[in-house]
Amino acid sequence: MSNQPKQLRLGAFLMSSGHHLASWRYPEARADGGLSFDHFRQIAQTAERGKFDMIFFADGVAVRDRERGTEVLSRTGHLVHFEPLTLLSALSVVTEHIGLVATVSTTYNEPFHLARKFASLDYLSGGRAAWNLVTSASTAEARNFNLDKHPDHAPRYERALEFVEVVTKLWDSWEDDAFLRDQESGVYFDRDKLHVPDHKGKHFSVKGPLNVARPIQGYPVLVQAGSSEDGKNLAAQTAEVIFTAQQTLADAQAFYADVKGRLAKYGRYPDQLKIMPGIFPVIGSTEQEAKEKFAAIQALIHPQVGLSLLTGMLGEIDLSKYPLDGPLPEIPHTELHQSRQKLLVELAQKENLTIRQLYEAIAGARGHWQVVGTPEQIADKMEEWFRNGGADGFNVMPPYLPGGLTEFVDHVIPELQRRGLFRTEYEGRTLRENLGLSRPVNQFTQETTSPELVGVSA
Amino acid sequence: MSNQPKQLRLGAFLMSSGHHLASWRYPEARADGGLSFDHFRQIAQTAERGKFDMIFFADGVAVRDRERGTEVLSRTGHLVHFEPLTLLSALSVVTEHIGLVATVSTTYNEPFHLARKFASLDYLSGGRAAWNLVTSASTAEARNFNLDKHPDHAPRYERALEFVEVVTKLWDSWEDDAFLRDQESGVYFDRDKLHVPDHKGKHFSVKGPLNVARPIQGYPVLVQAGSSEDGKNLAAQTAEVIFTAQQTLADAQAFYADVKGRLAKYGRYPDQLKIMPGIFPVIGSTEQEAKEKFAAIQALIHPQVGLSLLTGMLGEIDLSKYPLDGPLPEIPHTELHQSRQKLLVELAQKENLTIRQLYEAIAGARGHWQVVGTPEQIADKMEEWFRNGGADGFNVMPPYLPGGLTEFVDHVIPELQRRGLFRTEYEGRTLRENLGLSRPVNQFTQETTSPELVGVSA
Repeated sequence: MSNQPKQLRLGAFLMSSGHHLASWRYPEARADGGLSFDHFRQIAQTAERGKFDMIFFADGVAVRDRERGTEVLSRTGHLVHFEPLTLLSALSVVTEHIGLVATVSTTYNEPFHLARKFASLDYLSGGRAAWNLVTSASTAEARNFNLDKHPDHAPRYERALEFVEVVTKLWDSWEDDAFLRDQESGVYFDRDKLHVPDHKGKHFSVKGPLNVARPIQGYPVLVQAGSSEDGKNLAAQTAEVIFTAQQTLADAQAFYADVKGRLAKYGRYPDQLKIMPGIFPVIGSTEQEAKEKFAAIQALIHPQVGLSLLTGMLGEIDLSKYPLDGPLPEIPHTELHQSRQKLLVELAQKENLTIRQLYEAIAGARGHWQVVGTPEQIADKMEEWFRNGGADGFNVMPPYLPGGLTEFVDHVIPELQRRGLFRTEYEGRTLRENLGLSRPVNQFTQETTSPELVGVSA
Repeated sequence: MSNQPKQLRLGAFLMSSGHHLASWRYPEARADGGLSFDHFRQIAQTAERGKFDMIFFADGVAVRDRERGTEVLSRTGHLVHFEPLTLLSALSVVTEHIGLVATVSTTYNEPFHLARKFASLDYLSGGRAAWNLVTSASTAEARNFNLDKHPDHAPRYERALEFVEVVTKLWDSWEDDAFLRDQESGVYFDRDKLHVPDHKGKHFSVKGPLNVARPIQGYPVLVQAGSSEDGKNLAAQTAEVIFTAQQTLADAQAFYADVKGRLAKYGRYPDQLKIMPGIFPVIGSTEQEAKEKFAAIQALIHPQVGLSLLTGMLGEIDLSKYPLDGPLPEIPHTELHQSRQKLLVELAQKENLTIRQLYEAIAGARGHWQVVGTPEQIADKMEEWFRNGGADGFNVMPPYLPGGLTEFVDHVIPELQRRGLFRTEYEGRTLRENLGLSRPVNQFTQETTSPELVGVSA
């Protein structure tokens, strides 16, 4: 892989008390972290001390596992937490270098609001904003936005694609040097450098211009996580970073080659898209200690909660009527969660897992890659994927917070640095510079730039 | 007025480079302030040093004066600036006591997003969030949200009323002590303390619950600025603070009595709503110095820009065909901007103003009360309105920033404090406590509390 970057990219994927389903019950986790700014300030500063490229927040516009019934819900953590854009705006003040990635859905939002808020975050942070584009995928979310059921997969992606087009047009409303602010002459901006988007499409009609100047990064970095066919095509057209769930190097290599191979069709180069699988690291000073730690957390999962997680990922199927220690029944194909559903069914078949074993297998990382071992063993695995075309970097999912991230920064990062795989200082001023992504040219000033593209080289 | 509070309430109404239309051209203003976090950090900390109750940001979801043509626009400031919720989230980190008021429209938003973001800001700031409810009022805004024209006045207010109802239900989804987070037993919340709003109304269908705990203040403080009949009725039902534009003590007294008089109909008491007219103070060490300073700023208004401001406030009428130094023509009544239009026409008639004189009269404060003089003279005027049933406090609109606020804090605030009219230390921990507003009881736990009301005494 000659055009593979020399340095790993690392994201810190943060949740209230950590990624493990039972993390809030783990004594070293902060159970009430979801609404504590001090908690996130500490975590963000720890990630920055570790020279992470970015901190990343997932999001949904409903209480997680909302549909599972109140009894299950009452045993589940991460139910109430900060909204990511407000939290990251606050964290921009207590950090200097690290990228700030907020997830926002295109399904229940308007492009003007979204373009504006991310541009605002980009200015607050001096060029460190990134948008993780998702299309919402739960009935609970639909019901918070005047609908009875969730929109289907295909129209959601069609809307998402046009959404990105409108957002980038709004970000390009003003050229970088449009604002003169000449107090003497009274000329505030150069009229030739205003471009009114005047977008009229199937889903959106948006005149513009945006009431924020062109973002410091041109566009905030565009992140995606979809692994369905529609998701991969959307990413190939628009994304600069992909977070993905891969269980084995072979799967990771196949995904990597597949997605990178789709870029040329849209006039893009492999380096313009960084592929970062999730990794859920359970760290011990010996392998045995790591395994014991993992077992201790797994033992905290209430069976109702484990089952509920599985039900959600398999697509609203009722598993409670099947024995917990028996095999997974036949799962009907649904429109929702196509890729995650497939992953789980294949995992259960391949390893011949019972329902209980299946939920235990995913309770930590929810379908992401779990690595349990010493810092050296974890660095070995990361290096293996990185050097063999499986990943450009990783999105690190600490099992519990804040401790799980601190351990990674104190023990795994130095090991990666010793191997020359990871930076010891930030290279640039903006997230885009640190990720090695070029700054997009304004689509209204370059005849050669297609309006649909982001991340095009200057 | 026996139930008038003993202490003035003060808000600092902030705009990029100040309120005067030509402020960005004034040498002591920061022309590029709109997108500078350092600028707003300094201003917010100055306001907190002055013990202001709150800082306040107006907002619109389009470039201001968007419809006036590019030539006029190119001579106008405050075109690009931070989005208020992201900015205030960042400012929450660099302040400790001051309230944070963001304007958000009910016309182009969804209650779930809004309830969530303000709850998030309330947790970030330790209970200092406030929402200024507006219904958007420009064609430029409509065109950024898939519409050709702006919705009419009455349906906008009907939607706004239901919007508030949904938002308060979402804030009440969880009782204050719902979250047990008992790591031992594995019970995260008390099931009896979850209340699913399940709202179904004419404009909204929102199931809930909110994915943020009940805000620290119960509800963030609810602010409004509408002065039309619909606006006053909405405020009487829902608002806890009203910002209003009043030119004379007599007008202020009439407005004050009118709005306070409407509260009883909704089972509310006069103290539950603080009325705060805007004041645009031009401060000099002598009256002459203040007048010269004001004249110097007025001289910076470009005629095209002045005319454009007037046109916008009078409701999209084309004034360019009338002589600038002649009288205001007959203005047709429009649905939009009812109250501001009326105010301007009356002002022109009463003082026999030309078009130029009219735009000069409002260029600073846009229809708000302008006071030009020494700190003592300004304090005299404020005291007069406060002691005579015209105001519970004021929303201070500095002509230019940051200097205009610094002068107010250094010279007018000490004068108000000497007179015993204004605090020397913050009384409480939250904005609600500092304003002397009671914490709303959860509507789902008190049979005696009507769901439509906010600010009800415990």
